[in-house]
Amino acid sequence: MPQENASAQTQSIQQHGQGQQVLDLDVLIVGAGVSGLATAHELRKRAPDLKLLIVEAKSRVGGRTLTVEMKGRTDKMEKFDLGGQWVGKTQSHILEIMKEFKIQTYDQYTDGIKLAQMGDVNELRPYVSALSEKNLRHYTEVELLDFFTNTNKLKALCDKLDLIEIFESQDAEVLDQMTVSQWTRDNCQTDTVEDVMELGSRIVYGVPFTRMSMLYHLFFSKSAGGYQNLVESIGDGAQAIRLHGGTQQISERLAQPFIENNTLKMNTAVSRIDIDTQTGLARVRMYDTKNKDAVLRMQIVRAKRVIMAIPPTECGKLRWVPEVPFMKRRLFDNMYFGNMIKFVVTYKRAFWREKGYSGEVVSMGRTNEEGEMLPVVDAYDGCAPGGTPAIVGFMREEYADYTKELRCKEAVDDLARIYGDEAQDFIDYDEKVWGQEPFNGGCPVAYVPPGQMDAFAAIREPHHNVHFAGTESATHWMGYMSGAVQAGRRAAHEVLHMLDRDDVVHFSYLTDSTFAAGFLEKQQQGATQPKSKM
Amino acid sequence: MPQENASAQTQSIQQHGQGQQVLDLDVLIVGAGVSGLATAHELRKRAPDLKLLIVEAKSRVGGRTLTVEMKGRTDKMEKFDLGGQWVGKTQSHILEIMKEFKIQTYDQYTDGIKLAQMGDVNELRPYVSALSEKNLRHYTEVELLDFFTNTNKLKALCDKLDLIEIFESQDAEVLDQMTVSQWTRDNCQTDTVEDVMELGSRIVYGVPFTRMSMLYHLFFSKSAGGYQNLVESIGDGAQAIRLHGGTQQISERLAQPFIENNTLKMNTAVSRIDIDTQTGLARVRMYDTKNKDAVLRMQIVRAKRVIMAIPPTECGKLRWVPEVPFMKRRLFDNMYFGNMIKFVVTYKRAFWREKGYSGEVVSMGRTNEEGEMLPVVDAYDGCAPGGTPAIVGFMREEYADYTKELRCKEAVDDLARIYGDEAQDFIDYDEKVWGQEPFNGGCPVAYVPPGQMDAFAAIREPHHNVHFAGTESATHWMGYMSGAVQAGRRAAHEVLHMLDRDDVVHFSYLTDSTFAAGFLEKQQQGATQPKSKM
Repeated sequence: MPQENASAQTQSIQQHGQGQQVLDLDVLIVGAGVSGLATAHELRKRAPDLKLLIVEAKSRVGGRTLTVEMKGRTDKMEKFDLGGQWVGKTQSHILEIMKEFKIQTYDQYTDGIKLAQMGDVNELRPYVSALSEKNLRHYTEVELLDFFTNTNKLKALCDKLDLIEIFESQDAEVLDQMTVSQWTRDNCQTDTVEDVMELGSRIVYGVPFTRMSMLYHLFFSKSAGGYQNLVESIGDGAQAIRLHGGTQQISERLAQPFIENNTLKMNTAVSRIDIDTQTGLARVRMYDTKNKDAVLRMQIVRAKRVIMAIPPTECGKLRWVPEVPFMKRRLFDNMYFGNMIKFVVTYKRAFWREKGYSGEVVSMGRTNEEGEMLPVVDAYDGCAPGGTPAIVGFMREEYADYTKELRCKEAVDDLARIYGDEAQDFIDYDEKVWGQEPFNGGCPVAYVPPGQMDAFAAIREPHHNVHFAGTESATHWMGYMSGAVQAGRRAAHEVLHMLDRDDVVHFSYLTDSTFAAGFLEKQQQGATQPKSKM
Repeated sequence: MPQENASAQTQSIQQHGQGQQVLDLDVLIVGAGVSGLATAHELRKRAPDLKLLIVEAKSRVGGRTLTVEMKGRTDKMEKFDLGGQWVGKTQSHILEIMKEFKIQTYDQYTDGIKLAQMGDVNELRPYVSALSEKNLRHYTEVELLDFFTNTNKLKALCDKLDLIEIFESQDAEVLDQMTVSQWTRDNCQTDTVEDVMELGSRIVYGVPFTRMSMLYHLFFSKSAGGYQNLVESIGDGAQAIRLHGGTQQISERLAQPFIENNTLKMNTAVSRIDIDTQTGLARVRMYDTKNKDAVLRMQIVRAKRVIMAIPPTECGKLRWVPEVPFMKRRLFDNMYFGNMIKFVVTYKRAFWREKGYSGEVVSMGRTNEEGEMLPVVDAYDGCAPGGTPAIVGFMREEYADYTKELRCKEAVDDLARIYGDEAQDFIDYDEKVWGQEPFNGGCPVAYVPPGQMDAFAAIREPHHNVHFAGTESATHWMGYMSGAVQAGRRAAHEVLHMLDRDDVVHFSYLTDSTFAAGFLEKQQQGATQPKSKM
């Protein structure tokens, strides 16, 4: 252990021209995405005296949010989101943060005809507004009956699910042994509804429905208040609200005080976490991700508490001493990401609106050519508030190995099929292949394959003094920015509780935490004042 | 890129007291398990002039083979295998290597009564010899009918499968969307056969059948010549033959010449592979895994060809520049390991033989206590040739977080249930929790979850000048030591072909390689003599 020859080590580091010491912290937060920064924000508000450090492997904050500038209708550049873009009306946690920073919002444009390509029909069929019967006259009675039966079945299964004690729910084990596609095959009668289920999986998680546990699908749906909320752009849907200036500003605003007081270290990746179970301290090894030399200088920090605000799959790439329990190892190694490619195309005119289209489309991408799959899975009106018309869309993972140029051509060709030839006359194209982003994950969210939900059920369990934030560990709007905030706040309060700061812990943040019972017990016993100074 | 300021870098390294230069190689082999060493062995035999280096992250060779000494009947220690232990009569590739090194073998002891606990019956039911009808009189007619119907169905599905063009096989897509448990539920009528399928999955792969693609199960079975071969200890079964002196010696013997000429570097892990697509060279960054300092000195080598002889999941932890194609990324991130815990218990007397038992047992571990699962999934006679009686067994993954002491107690208690109280009177106990072994995988093999077999189908595709060995990429006895040799030889011949050494390439090693067609074409064109000197 480095502890044993600390002086020799310090000397060795100083010889290399970097007078580093082991830095002692109260809390280390790993990851400066929405969740890590929400954690830091919460800790700073509740206990400003804590010695805190946030480290981020990338050279930017924001995780899976990324706002870029693109050429717009005028000479002025406009901002567009290549990562998380929307919020929903019931996403209370992220809405609170947005309110705090006075971030202005506007509604997603949804007027007019929507288009869908599914079932035996290779053409796009129109529908309007929500998925209610009167709006679906282009579908047969058999398709509609199958669709609404299926919707009711999903709702009934969600109703029976317990988000905390997942395996206490009825049929949980059987549902975890099935892929969503297998469940669909067993329960749906028409190709159309099979496609609805496949498109739902592709759109919400970025993966084909052949890979995912049905139980996970239900968990995720319920955490958003129901499956419809995941796919709708109206009402309580996840795609209902947009932000002036994009979503990355949320992280930038949250990060500002920590940048100012030099407690947010960029380009710093964790490689190893050694937990000394005797002293209760974690020694965390980190390195400079921009380093190109043959010598990698490790920065070592020692922290009372560590909060991992990176995806499980990234946690799995670190060396843990002692190794994490087997359940957590399985979670780390199996909760993989979907990999949609997000793109934005800007135009002079919103020609689709002029034609009566809302811009919203979902498509299986089938053509008369056997095996051909056109790229666009879903697309939406993406007009920027500054006045630049735009379409924002998602391409299926199969296009990940294309060049950007070729993807641009394929995407625009597909938009021309969908909205008309005017789509070819675009101003600017930009995109993000999230699957190729190091220290991150895919797009939009992570999923759990069959037979692994027992491991997922333990996602919020700490490993000694290491706690887990990240939207994957949320129970309300898990996978979304709001879940990232919820999970970050929960982890912050877990840490406050464990640092004997129950005077500032609010139970409402701990309801889904493994520490909830312990906190309540301490409160009921009329716990003595915290030992630590305020 | 380090290339751009090579002189500054060399200076910097020399300042640190290690006069390192970038080492130029023809071939770098990553991993000194059976596969990497078989690759090196083949290359050395065919083209001894190639400049070769093998790197191994651990301080030992052998990968998932590990031979240890344990206390035996007399004062003398005896050797036992805590990793791969058996070979089968049709495992031609490993048998060839064993013949070359004149390694003596003996048959697995199989005389007498075998025991099985499955179905509604919580007791162990006896059976003898192979799974034929006359030997199964303790089972009902319904159980037997279901069992043999199921066996025939599996055989028929295997027959239809193409090991190379997997998705050309009938129903491949549907079979890949199902877990093995779901297929079982749809096809088997009795709890007993459901347990047969679950135990098969636990024993062969080390995972519950709820997690695995049915198509993968069929692929794996067929690569071994059929499902029965995977579970049998007689005939062509995978557990038929044992080695005097254990299996790790295979790797030690293969490694010897490379240790002698200093071309096998232990404790050296790869962290990053940069492929220069202009020069066709790979720059590989490596570090000393034993280093405990805050400064990690990177060793950089530059190789014409790199052969990865580590599991896909370990490949996924490296940084790849350029990033691997999306299919390979999916394979790396999704082909997880089973995690059985292997244990050996030594005794004074082979009391089970005296009682008429072969020692072979398979068990669901169910008791009358709801939810209780006893540890031992399968066990065998493990008597050592020196005369020490022993039982070798495998514990279910759920016991991974227990202490060694507690696991020992639980295992021995379970053996006492199975063979009688004499099991308590043991001499020595040892074990290996493979899931906790860094730079490795679990036990016994890797598996593919549903919906990912399209990614698996691309397992042998090289990434620029990086080739892939490892038993997971074999097509004959994949997952076994024999597959490791087959895959290693294939990778060796791929590299010889790409280094213009077709004079020493044998097509028989390339039949399942993506280079097979190219090699044949060159041969038919009567390709000119290789440019490189012999």
